[in-house]
Amino acid sequence: MQEIKSLLEHVQEGKLSVEEAMAALKELPYKDIGIAKIDHHRELRNGYPEVIYCEGKQLEHIQYIIEEMLKKSNNILATRANPEVYEAVKEVCETAVYHKLARIITIERKKIQLPKTYISVVTGGTSDIPVAEEAAVTAEFLGNRVERVYDVGVAGIHRLFGNLERITGARVIIAVAGMEGALASVVGGLVDKPVLAVPTSIGYGASFNGLSALLCMLNSCASGVSVMNIDNGFGAGYMASMINKL
Amino acid sequence: MQEIKSLLEHVQEGKLSVEEAMAALKELPYKDIGIAKIDHHRELRNGYPEVIYCEGKQLEHIQYIIEEMLKKSNNILATRANPEVYEAVKEVCETAVYHKLARIITIERKKIQLPKTYISVVTGGTSDIPVAEEAAVTAEFLGNRVERVYDVGVAGIHRLFGNLERITGARVIIAVAGMEGALASVVGGLVDKPVLAVPTSIGYGASFNGLSALLCMLNSCASGVSVMNIDNGFGAGYMASMINKL
Amino acid sequence: MQEIKSLLEHVQEGKLSVEEAMAALKELPYKDIGIAKIDHHRELRNGYPEVIYCEGKQLEHIQYIIEEMLKKSNNILATRANPEVYEAVKEVCETAVYHKLARIITIERKKIQLPKTYISVVTGGTSDIPVAEEAAVTAEFLGNRVERVYDVGVAGIHRLFGNLERITGARVIIAVAGMEGALASVVGGLVDKPVLAVPTSIGYGASFNGLSALLCMLNSCASGVSVMNIDNGFGAGYMASMINKL
Amino acid sequence: MQEIKSLLEHVQEGKLSVEEAMAALKELPYKDIGIAKIDHHRELRNGYPEVIYCEGKQLEHIQYIIEEMLKKSNNILATRANPEVYEAVKEVCETAVYHKLARIITIERKKIQLPKTYISVVTGGTSDIPVAEEAAVTAEFLGNRVERVYDVGVAGIHRLFGNLERITGARVIIAVAGMEGALASVVGGLVDKPVLAVPTSIGYGASFNGLSALLCMLNSCASGVSVMNIDNGFGAGYMASMINKL
Amino acid sequence: MQEIKSLLEHVQEGKLSVEEAMAALKELPYKDIGIAKIDHHRELRNGYPEVIYCEGKQLEHIQYIIEEMLKKSNNILATRANPEVYEAVKEVCETAVYHKLARIITIERKKIQLPKTYISVVTGGTSDIPVAEEAAVTAEFLGNRVERVYDVGVAGIHRLFGNLERITGARVIIAVAGMEGALASVVGGLVDKPVLAVPTSIGYGASFNGLSALLCMLNSCASGVSVMNIDNGFGAGYMASMINKL
Amino acid sequence: MQEIKSLLEHVQEGKLSVEEAMAALKELPYKDIGIAKIDHHRELRNGYPEVIYCEGKQLEHIQYIIEEMLKKSNNILATRANPEVYEAVKEVCETAVYHKLARIITIERKKIQLPKTYISVVTGGTSDIPVAEEAAVTAEFLGNRVERVYDVGVAGIHRLFGNLERITGARVIIAVAGMEGALASVVGGLVDKPVLAVPTSIGYGASFNGLSALLCMLNSCASGVSVMNIDNGFGAGYMASMINKL
Amino acid sequence: MQEIKSLLEHVQEGKLSVEEAMAALKELPYKDIGIAKIDHHRELRNGYPEVIYCEGKQLEHIQYIIEEMLKKSNNILATRANPEVYEAVKEVCETAVYHKLARIITIERKKIQLPKTYISVVTGGTSDIPVAEEAAVTAEFLGNRVERVYDVGVAGIHRLFGNLERITGARVIIAVAGMEGALASVVGGLVDKPVLAVPTSIGYGASFNGLSALLCMLNSCASGVSVMNIDNGFGAGYMASMINKL
Amino acid sequence: MQEIKSLLEHVQEGKLSVEEAMAALKELPYKDIGIAKIDHHRELRNGYPEVIYCEGKQLEHIQYIIEEMLKKSNNILATRANPEVYEAVKEVCETAVYHKLARIITIERKKIQLPKTYISVVTGGTSDIPVAEEAAVTAEFLGNRVERVYDVGVAGIHRLFGNLERITGARVIIAVAGMEGALASVVGGLVDKPVLAVPTSIGYGASFNGLSALLCMLNSCASGVSVMNIDNGFGAGYMASMINKL
Repeated sequence: MQEIKSLLEHVQEGKLSVEEAMAALKELPYKDIGIAKIDHHRELRNGYPEVIYCEGKQLEHIQYIIEEMLKKSNNILATRANPEVYEAVKEVCETAVYHKLARIITIERKKIQLPKTYISVVTGGTSDIPVAEEAAVTAEFLGNRVERVYDVGVAGIHRLFGNLERITGARVIIAVAGMEGALASVVGGLVDKPVLAVPTSIGYGASFNGLSALLCMLNSCASGVSVMNIDNGFGAGYMASMINKL
Repeated sequence: MQEIKSLLEHVQEGKLSVEEAMAALKELPYKDIGIAKIDHHRELRNGYPEVIYCEGKQLEHIQYIIEEMLKKSNNILATRANPEVYEAVKEVCETAVYHKLARIITIERKKIQLPKTYISVVTGGTSDIPVAEEAAVTAEFLGNRVERVYDVGVAGIHRLFGNLERITGARVIIAVAGMEGALASVVGGLVDKPVLAVPTSIGYGASFNGLSALLCMLNSCASGVSVMNIDNGFGAGYMASMINKL
Repeated sequence: MQEIKSLLEHVQEGKLSVEEAMAALKELPYKDIGIAKIDHHRELRNGYPEVIYCEGKQLEHIQYIIEEMLKKSNNILATRANPEVYEAVKEVCETAVYHKLARIITIERKKIQLPKTYISVVTGGTSDIPVAEEAAVTAEFLGNRVERVYDVGVAGIHRLFGNLERITGARVIIAVAGMEGALASVVGGLVDKPVLAVPTSIGYGASFNGLSALLCMLNSCASGVSVMNIDNGFGAGYMASMINKL
Repeated sequence: MQEIKSLLEHVQEGKLSVEEAMAALKELPYKDIGIAKIDHHRELRNGYPEVIYCEGKQLEHIQYIIEEMLKKSNNILATRANPEVYEAVKEVCETAVYHKLARIITIERKKIQLPKTYISVVTGGTSDIPVAEEAAVTAEFLGNRVERVYDVGVAGIHRLFGNLERITGARVIIAVAGMEGALASVVGGLVDKPVLAVPTSIGYGASFNGLSALLCMLNSCASGVSVMNIDNGFGAGYMASMINKL
Repeated sequence: MQEIKSLLEHVQEGKLSVEEAMAALKELPYKDIGIAKIDHHRELRNGYPEVIYCEGKQLEHIQYIIEEMLKKSNNILATRANPEVYEAVKEVCETAVYHKLARIITIERKKIQLPKTYISVVTGGTSDIPVAEEAAVTAEFLGNRVERVYDVGVAGIHRLFGNLERITGARVIIAVAGMEGALASVVGGLVDKPVLAVPTSIGYGASFNGLSALLCMLNSCASGVSVMNIDNGFGAGYMASMINKL
Repeated sequence: MQEIKSLLEHVQEGKLSVEEAMAALKELPYKDIGIAKIDHHRELRNGYPEVIYCEGKQLEHIQYIIEEMLKKSNNILATRANPEVYEAVKEVCETAVYHKLARIITIERKKIQLPKTYISVVTGGTSDIPVAEEAAVTAEFLGNRVERVYDVGVAGIHRLFGNLERITGARVIIAVAGMEGALASVVGGLVDKPVLAVPTSIGYGASFNGLSALLCMLNSCASGVSVMNIDNGFGAGYMASMINKL
Repeated sequence: MQEIKSLLEHVQEGKLSVEEAMAALKELPYKDIGIAKIDHHRELRNGYPEVIYCEGKQLEHIQYIIEEMLKKSNNILATRANPEVYEAVKEVCETAVYHKLARIITIERKKIQLPKTYISVVTGGTSDIPVAEEAAVTAEFLGNRVERVYDVGVAGIHRLFGNLERITGARVIIAVAGMEGALASVVGGLVDKPVLAVPTSIGYGASFNGLSALLCMLNSCASGVSVMNIDNGFGAGYMASMINKL
Repeated sequence: MQEIKSLLEHVQEGKLSVEEAMAALKELPYKDIGIAKIDHHRELRNGYPEVIYCEGKQLEHIQYIIEEMLKKSNNILATRANPEVYEAVKEVCETAVYHKLARIITIERKKIQLPKTYISVVTGGTSDIPVAEEAAVTAEFLGNRVERVYDVGVAGIHRLFGNLERITGARVIIAVAGMEGALASVVGGLVDKPVLAVPTSIGYGASFNGLSALLCMLNSCASGVSVMNIDNGFGAGYMASMINKL
């Protein structure tokens, strides 16, 4: 709304013609490069990196999009990137770093500042770690300290209690679990901080690719739990960062 | 198999004609009363009561079936019985007792013996109590001591820990929960006894009438948990009794 | 963990016997009143009210639970309460206030303090208002200022833009929508604040009682959106309050 | 109905025997080539091309069917064709053209006429482009001008507004989107033209292979939106052509 | 876009202050009456009536919204209105007309013009008629001639053929069917006009409240078929009107 | 096809004008009474009764349709008829007979002939009897002898074996069961006759209104089992009659 | 039941000891070969072949089972057999014949007799042919004449009418279709013979691997249609054979 | 609870400082090795082996976890292990044994004692054997005798009766079946022992990867049946062992 007001004032003051104002309205916040429309407006205002979701995109397209992004000086975060994608990205940007477990590529061009508060990322099992890492690396790259507390599922609840201080000390908690997904409810009942629950597709049979954990988390009896899409570690890291920086 | 062998021997010994043997084969273990075939064979062998599921049956049919059952001296258990059903049953059997919360009618005609071991019935919330009572009353009527531990859901896990001894002391545990159904996993991880998980239809929205709790329980990471149909308190009480009496 | 440490110290110092420590461990954080275990521990630490979910509970039980709650001096919030429940509650507490649209009863016994920041509650349509009110009244009673922006669904997106400033000015946004549930994505794309999406069961046919809106919100392309259970206005208000007070 | 009437008249006038009429009735509108029954009747009346859906068909069958089609002079459109299929088709028809992104093969034998009005094909993301291209190429080959507006999803709604004129100027709009599928509702609310919504299987987790977008589109609050099967770009292009030529 | 350009020009010419322009931007296209935001902008441009969906709205709210609508001179269409709603509407507008089968109330204030072309509304069975009438009455009130062809389902396909001319003569066809929903495919294969398929919730068992018909229609092999939400007669009538008036 | 050939011959021989032939083509096999198109063609050829499905139809419509049917001398079968419908039908036809359990009304006007072979209708439980009766009464009215074998579900398989001769002696078997629906598989494995499986909506929880029994029956390992819609007793009776009369 | 009676008589007459009778009871109708229990009893009574379902079985197991089957002189039918399975079977039986499209292996050792009546196998599309062939080859090998009518789906209904005589002349009809599955309803409405509907998994998107066709067929408005599992051509061929031989 | 009491006493007696008690509380029951938290507490109390679920874990992680486990002297059970995993495990432990059908690796370091009672593992078909073997090998390794009764599905129920004594003699029965899953109901109706039902993903079409068998088993009419997750042989073996050892 601020941009529109400012445009109107420039038109009023004769600094801008109507046509120029119309063009500005359309051009400003993103760049159209044909196959994609790169969105700079969040970065401009917030210091957020530009993000590219790699799954299903062709290598040459990813390269082209990143080359375009590199023309600005923002940090860049590429998610769901397999090693092949990383090889392709390194060809256009040597400083790209690959986070293997998280399947994330980061390109750091502005120094990232870390606040004192931290985000806790908790998993039910070992197999949930890739999704948790996607959340953790995303949150770190967005400028947050992260505490990892992995493999503390409710079937052996003493493991959770043994790590409780590292969880309750956080400002936001990301709870990642597959199978029955009960971790989010138990954590939600133990802490007074917002819990972002991430169901994973880990499991078999009646887990129905994460549906079981998803429903379990949506129905959590604990207050202060909200839910992300199945396997959406990136979304959880992003949302946790937003909350941590409030 | 034992009955068939005995029949064969009687035929061999001339005590029974072929026709009589054929008839006996068809008649013995149940009684055909037209609208239903009353099954006496479990009771004969095990001292189990005869059971009637009332939901969807007409009042006169229930009365008729119970009158037939009363011709033998077995105990009788009627489930899913509303107060109207109870009034009808009392007309044909004055000694019938109504367990309101459990929606169960019992007619005790043989003295029930209680073993020393007990079954623990645990619920996540207050709203799960009717299903839990169906399980508890069934188990008691089948000759078991029952310890009730209600409203100890995982969202306030200290309530569960405060009652742990009453749970771990049982020989079998029935865990009743709706919503996210995580109770079964947490209990299953804390005890070394078989846990029968009963999902309930308590909840709203994405609980989808108990589907959420059902899937959660089926996917329990804890070993030693098996699952009943949604709201099937009777089945859990019956199975727990079977296990407790082994 | 703090309580346990303190208990240990008292035992060490001889102020507490082992038996007293064991008893304290079990008794402190909740009160067992038979049909329910009232949970005081959040209130003690955070000034949160005690909460009771009324749906499916019997009137006398609700009265009894509230009478027990009134023995402490906390505020009380009763959700999913129809007018009949309100009549019953008024019998045991004359100062109870009924929020009809939100189906909430509040009993205010400690003065509620309001921070400067506010939570924005946005709905797609008029029919979503009851769920939105459940969120708004909950958030207000938990000590937050709330800005209501109703009936600004994406099918007439100019209505949303005309109210954008009231939305972007909030610290957290609750987006409530049924049918296709696209509101959360559009709002999430427009603001830099965490968005809590609440799907509602409003709709017909292929809305499948809110499943359509739920899936839509879980799959939001916008970053910074997490999702509550269908119709869970209370949960959204509670979570938003947690975030707003960080 | 016209053919039957004409047949009756020929019989009446003695130009046709009853047997000939019966044979004509069965033979005319399609040709039975054993493995398939090629349907010429739409082409005859409307100038539509003959269409073959390649997925799941064996290469030699596709070749055979196309050879049979080539015996008439209609245009031919082959959908869901991978490069291997294209190689096979080129063996029997050198002038076949391959549209790689759209996975379509076209054989143009009659000059295609273009009307002044156009169809706008809009996508939410870059990954939706293959389905959009299937729609666009189909529409073009059926004789329509097409305006492509790609990657304008609702999570960055300014991109959509910046391209609004190219959308509102169309006679029909095809809105292609996966994930939450909200694009159709937003476009439907902004324009006064019929919108054909095509959900795509793009997404992960709770997108359930396009179910999420499908439900979202079916529940659109905007009037003037109807929905195609998931990934059915061809169907949307065909239907849009029908409407554009009215 | 046209309004924004015009606003810019007025600002440039000094006819409008920046503040006035900002206000105009927010106020123009809808009216905020508290409980709802009435949307006038389609009517202004297209002669469409204002529409109100009554299901789930309180009687006094419906009365209030209609009173507000009556302050402009547009036609008014109220859908999903039961007789009780009609009584309430008649209190605020005596000329309101009730279409019982269609559950629609119409208030005609501007004379409706009818074009020569017509829309055909076809149903599979007698029970589908209410949905068909919702479509037909909507289309008529939007200014279209409608031909009703009811009870011509595919299980007795000669009934369909006996009415084929009334169907093929239409410019657009609305095919309404529950149960297996095959009507849309058969009609779509017989005509060269766009077919809008409306699944209904008519059926039992595995019809799953219209899911069966919905899936059947989405998977139609016939080209030129697109699908509305289950029971969405209004949507079909609206979309058909849009197409008929192109 | 025969009718068309005969029409063509009449046209050829000048007995019929083209217009008359066209009219005959459209009029013959059904009668259009406005709200419904009564289908006489099966009755004409096969001696089948005319059938009306009452659920969801208005009383006056049912009366009107039956009055029209009575103008021909066919037998009439009305399904899903509650007592209120029966009262209405009796007003227009005194000889109508009501089969309460089956919810069927029959009007017998031509004497029904019975063959020697019979159809066996088997149910798993007492609650499945209404669906079984719908099948049995339909089959009887279509001219078949029926043997009822009720309450012989697989959980007490000796009841099934005790009645095996009445089942294996049939020419076709209808197996009706809710809950787990295993009856069809067991019967299918025991007999060498076609088994028509009818899942019922009897059950609770994870029976999901008959889905459980439906899936169980579709997946039957026994050869010679095919499946009807949930609760479709009429369809099973009709199909069994077709097979029995081959 | 006959065998049991005969056993009893032998016992009575002293021809059999009780132990021998018990053993006979267990041994007769199948042969236990460790990994499988081959079932000879249908073949003995009916001249049916022995059947083996190959999918998911290891090659050596299939070979072993067939070698055991070859020790009796029955015909053998192996379904879901890929070419690799065929190679393995040929090693143990040179006369095995492979039906490639049907994925069936047959070993004919007793001459098959053909009745005069025939079964018609109808498909909606070309892609449904493999399932149709599984049905057709099964039916032929069970001793039936089969008429194949392929690619006559309802979207081009004139193709169906052009082949109607070959369909109506059959004693039983198997209707095989994927996508919307409407073929079964249309055929069921046109003929007076039992129709066995086989949904196929052909399709994409909202066909959900055959669910769409399955539901469509279960909800068929036409009387005389019953449904097989998705892709279950064998089951349809077997059931059709049972009916054809009545 | 016992450990906490003992800790308190040590603190009281001055044997333990508060800090040591806090540390002990966190450290005792599991060992944190970074990627996983190995849980020794069940083994300590019950003689159970340590268990590792291999699916989805990387080879080096499995090796590392097993090396850590080998530092204690417990038996080790690795489930869902393919041959490649076995090769990796053999590198770190030469005495590891591979159970190919069961996909289980066992490392026996303490002699396993066998009780007199046994567990019966029953399957419906040959294809269910891998899941059954997972259950059987697990139960044996946990110290139980196991009786295998395979391929006795209900479609040929005489096979089941011929093996009944081996089933009824068991203390607990595991019933493993895919497709329609009716085995559990039939077995449950025949025996008086607890039945653990394991649905398998064997089947096609409407088996929906085991959903059909799962629902069938959950809805079992037989009392004394509870259900495991689809394909969860390990869980069934573990639970059966718990019950057998009571």
